[in-house]
Amino acid sequence: MAAGKTNIAQSLEALLPGRVSMAEAVLRQHANTLTWIASELPDVVVWPETEAEVQAVVRLAAESGVPVVAFGAGTSLEGHVNAARGGISLDLSHMNRILAVHAEDLDAEVEAGVTREMLNQFLRDTGLFFAVDPGAGQATIGGMAATRASGTNTIRYGTMRDNVLSVTAVMADGSLVSTGERARKSAAGYDLTRLLVGSEGTLGIITRLRVRLHAVPPSVVAAVAPFETLEGAARAVIEAIQLGLSLARIELLDELMIGAVNRHAQLSLSETPTLFLEFHGTEGATRDATDTFAEIAGRHGGRGFEWAAREEDRRRLWRARHDAFWAVREAWPGMDVIVTDACVPISRLADCILETEADFRDCGITAPIVGHVGDGNFHAIAIADCSDARQLATVKGLAERLARRAIGMGGTSTGEHGIGEGKLGLLDLELGAGAEIMRRIKQALDPKGILNPGKIGSPRGSDA
Amino acid sequence: MAAGKTNIAQSLEALLPGRVSMAEAVLRQHANTLTWIASELPDVVVWPETEAEVQAVVRLAAESGVPVVAFGAGTSLEGHVNAARGGISLDLSHMNRILAVHAEDLDAEVEAGVTREMLNQFLRDTGLFFAVDPGAGQATIGGMAATRASGTNTIRYGTMRDNVLSVTAVMADGSLVSTGERARKSAAGYDLTRLLVGSEGTLGIITRLRVRLHAVPPSVVAAVAPFETLEGAARAVIEAIQLGLSLARIELLDELMIGAVNRHAQLSLSETPTLFLEFHGTEGATRDATDTFAEIAGRHGGRGFEWAAREEDRRRLWRARHDAFWAVREAWPGMDVIVTDACVPISRLADCILETEADFRDCGITAPIVGHVGDGNFHAIAIADCSDARQLATVKGLAERLARRAIGMGGTSTGEHGIGEGKLGLLDLELGAGAEIMRRIKQALDPKGILNPGKIGSPRGSDA
Repeated sequence: MAAGKTNIAQSLEALLPGRVSMAEAVLRQHANTLTWIASELPDVVVWPETEAEVQAVVRLAAESGVPVVAFGAGTSLEGHVNAARGGISLDLSHMNRILAVHAEDLDAEVEAGVTREMLNQFLRDTGLFFAVDPGAGQATIGGMAATRASGTNTIRYGTMRDNVLSVTAVMADGSLVSTGERARKSAAGYDLTRLLVGSEGTLGIITRLRVRLHAVPPSVVAAVAPFETLEGAARAVIEAIQLGLSLARIELLDELMIGAVNRHAQLSLSETPTLFLEFHGTEGATRDATDTFAEIAGRHGGRGFEWAAREEDRRRLWRARHDAFWAVREAWPGMDVIVTDACVPISRLADCILETEADFRDCGITAPIVGHVGDGNFHAIAIADCSDARQLATVKGLAERLARRAIGMGGTSTGEHGIGEGKLGLLDLELGAGAEIMRRIKQALDPKGILNPGKIGSPRGSDA
Repeated sequence: MAAGKTNIAQSLEALLPGRVSMAEAVLRQHANTLTWIASELPDVVVWPETEAEVQAVVRLAAESGVPVVAFGAGTSLEGHVNAARGGISLDLSHMNRILAVHAEDLDAEVEAGVTREMLNQFLRDTGLFFAVDPGAGQATIGGMAATRASGTNTIRYGTMRDNVLSVTAVMADGSLVSTGERARKSAAGYDLTRLLVGSEGTLGIITRLRVRLHAVPPSVVAAVAPFETLEGAARAVIEAIQLGLSLARIELLDELMIGAVNRHAQLSLSETPTLFLEFHGTEGATRDATDTFAEIAGRHGGRGFEWAAREEDRRRLWRARHDAFWAVREAWPGMDVIVTDACVPISRLADCILETEADFRDCGITAPIVGHVGDGNFHAIAIADCSDARQLATVKGLAERLARRAIGMGGTSTGEHGIGEGKLGLLDLELGAGAEIMRRIKQALDPKGILNPGKIGSPRGSDA
């Protein structure tokens, strides 16, 4: 197929002169990087700068039957950007214009390649911010929408599902579809916005998004709350949520994770299960919430608090939390890091984490845990040497048992990292006939199967 | 087709003995009632009591090529339950069991025929409530999900899109699909939950739902805030939202609507554009919010407040608001009432309402206005005699111009009432290629077109 690849590259070069590459290093950089899943390289990478160019590339791909894999920042964790059948990696990073900020309406329109940090930097003096904050600051808003990303403040501000008002996308036939405009709510037919959000580039390539912004709250108070036991921390979370406290963030780090974070961020937190909290609201609301939470924590083995009201201290705290992945990589140098992603009803969270901890311990695999516990979502981050086939098999077994455990508890195998290649096999397990509905939708909207093949909606057994 | 109808009814009677009716009055009651759209009767009505029975009915329909129209409480406003091609009206009102309440997780599992009032009655002593509150108290939760309903407190608690965790539905081939369980968030493939929510019975028949509950806030304060002008009220809303006040409800009623509400509910509010507000939170939060809002209102021509902190007074206030539709019917006896439903970015709300008021005035049609202004959503309720062809044509023209105006302002032709038959013609106007995507999805999931034909996803020109 070398000749075929060269032909495609030549045709692309005619469309996007100087913005096409077949260099090995570039191809490698556009395949999967952050997981145990083996990289599968595209044949060629292109950098469109306009929607019309994205359309032209997709039309060319459709005519030639060549796959197209949309690429944002490449920070996904389940092999989403792997080119399972080669083809074109369509890199959206040049489409990074902030098209409009409507301060009165608390929304913005951005191209898909705008990163969340770029947007928040741009909004700095407006009193507004874009809320969704996955670990990767350089994640693009298009990529975050495509994977239905969330972050540490989902409990208050929601996931990408809630923060995308509408999108514009190039469909498999090259047509451009807009799923709506800037209304806060709409009952105008099927929810195409939510269908594209989380579709991982398999139904359309998101090129533009209208997103919600939020007002920076008048009062923000953060705190670190160590607990005697993980169960105590989980109980405190449940009680706080039931009381409707104005929680903006409530993150659990187990003792192993606190240790890694201490070393990475030069902190000296006591190495015990700990909640990182943040309250947003008016002065009155945050004062009430922090007082109430202190009482709740006291009832569940909380060992007092360390408040961080100064913005500088808060930033340091959340930087440390966001860097958890890198802290783990640093704490176990030379080892591979496999991030799991279960989400369960909050009443089952302590059970799910404790059973998972025990399973990892029994298998001799170290796995610090960090969780968006207000959502019932947590990540056990397995430390292993993936070049050792036995270790890799052990970790895969642990990950699959965790997924089954979460599903068995009324939860899901993935709260926020998505399906990619890594969890394709679990979709039928989790959703049964629902997975077949997904394949039918994929077939209807991308009959040639050119958009990110081998991922959600692919014919059963074709690539998994 | 009389023989065919009788055959179907006999087959249904064999499946659901004693729960099948072809009585004219029953058929009439199951067709459209609350709009200017002419009623189209089903041939037969059935009352299944289990999911297996729903599956059996749908399988029979699929084999016979007979349409099935899911029916909840029949409170939709755009002819959603009209049987455009006759067939079976599948009445879910017997499926009204509350299957589980998970207080710790703030969720419940209910059958589709449970009404929002039944669920809230059931939750009375738990400290929890189900938030979405369309005008019709007897609306079923299944019907509310199918139409993506919202209500007066969407600004804080969201629409049905946000409050449904997952659904179980019978698809067009009779298969049963569950879109997930009880996780607060999920990245497990396409968002089938959100695809079914708002699909108006055209993709599947929702039989069971897992819904979010919310904690009853420790402090609730309501207020009535009259303004000199409608623009002033709208400006105050924008400012309040930008400050992130803990608003739970913010509803606008124009002077005509206040007049109707006064008469219907024996209130004596001054007849001027007025906001009905409610703040939820801790004592501190609601105190801060009300103080701040009083300042904001003062800057925009607010004429002082009347607080309603007592539960009894609050109930009276919101009962009056919820009864707005009936208040209008009562104020103009013998006239038809046509409810419009535009939603625009909040910065355009005053413009959109003022232009709409002027248009109605110029056409000599009275139309009180009520709006969920925190969402940018409002309803002009046209008073007309629909048996007068000229008046009907005038109102249709006004409604279509309003839809175009809202779309032109970056909004939508329907914020919460949906498409049904009444707005099918607007979907292509509003979403262009997106409407074609809807038709392809419909074709993929219901190739025989038996689920609520003549509505969203129907082939162009087939029924519209």
